[in-house]
Amino acid sequence: MAGLPAALTSIDHVGVAVEDIEAALALYRDALAMPLVHRETVSEQGVDAALLDVGDGHLELLQPLGPDTAVGKFLARRGPGLHHVAYRVSSIESALSALRAAGLRLIDERPRTGIRGSRVAFVHPGSTGGVLTEIVEPAGGEH
Amino acid sequence: MAGLPAALTSIDHVGVAVEDIEAALALYRDALAMPLVHRETVSEQGVDAALLDVGDGHLELLQPLGPDTAVGKFLARRGPGLHHVAYRVSSIESALSALRAAGLRLIDERPRTGIRGSRVAFVHPGSTGGVLTEIVEPAGGEH
Repeated sequence: MAGLPAALTSIDHVGVAVEDIEAALALYRDALAMPLVHRETVSEQGVDAALLDVGDGHLELLQPLGPDTAVGKFLARRGPGLHHVAYRVSSIESALSALRAAGLRLIDERPRTGIRGSRVAFVHPGSTGGVLTEIVEPAGGEH
Repeated sequence: MAGLPAALTSIDHVGVAVEDIEAALALYRDALAMPLVHRETVSEQGVDAALLDVGDGHLELLQPLGPDTAVGKFLARRGPGLHHVAYRVSSIESALSALRAAGLRLIDERPRTGIRGSRVAFVHPGSTGGVLTEIVEPAGGEH
């Protein structure tokens, strides 16, 4: 390993692939009382998404916009369930440099726009033991 | 829904099934600089486990003690990767009552001992959209 550590400051969120986001909201928002804090269609990622608060972190529900999206293919292959884990960082550029220096295979060489104006990048699960891993720099003032 | 909400206060940890815990530690502890805070063989759950800190939460690495354990079967069926998500609660009895009242199917009707002296219970993924879900009441003074 070379360079500075990636400085993962918290578990920002866990992403869950769902077939029916309204049914998932009935579970998490209504039955489990997690506050729903954001809804967004993230066209670039092909998902209808919802963020619910769990303390300082979030649960992110992801319903694919169609079968040819990444989450649509995931659902077809593995069924609904845990999709990815995202770690919060204060500087996504520094974190990307550190991950690259650590030899990890990046899906995103540069940050892209994530939910709620965040800047995000994904690491390929082939270099993280099968775990699709995201890093997130929240938009200013939000987390 | 009846009764009080389950009061999930944070994402306590994300559990990851691994084939080789030393290789996983080389990634998370060495390359990603997550502090290793605990190692334990949890015979009751059939795993060699490691906890690494990520802010206030943890990453839990789980290497099965054999192919006939729950995690061993998971690895054979799905390969290594995300295994479960665990939410922290202040009272596991209250949380279990709330989950039961919400109609969720419990794997553990009563708390059992988890890693590092915590009290834990699992919810069946059949009632949580395919997500194996754990609730954790940390041992006193630790989290």
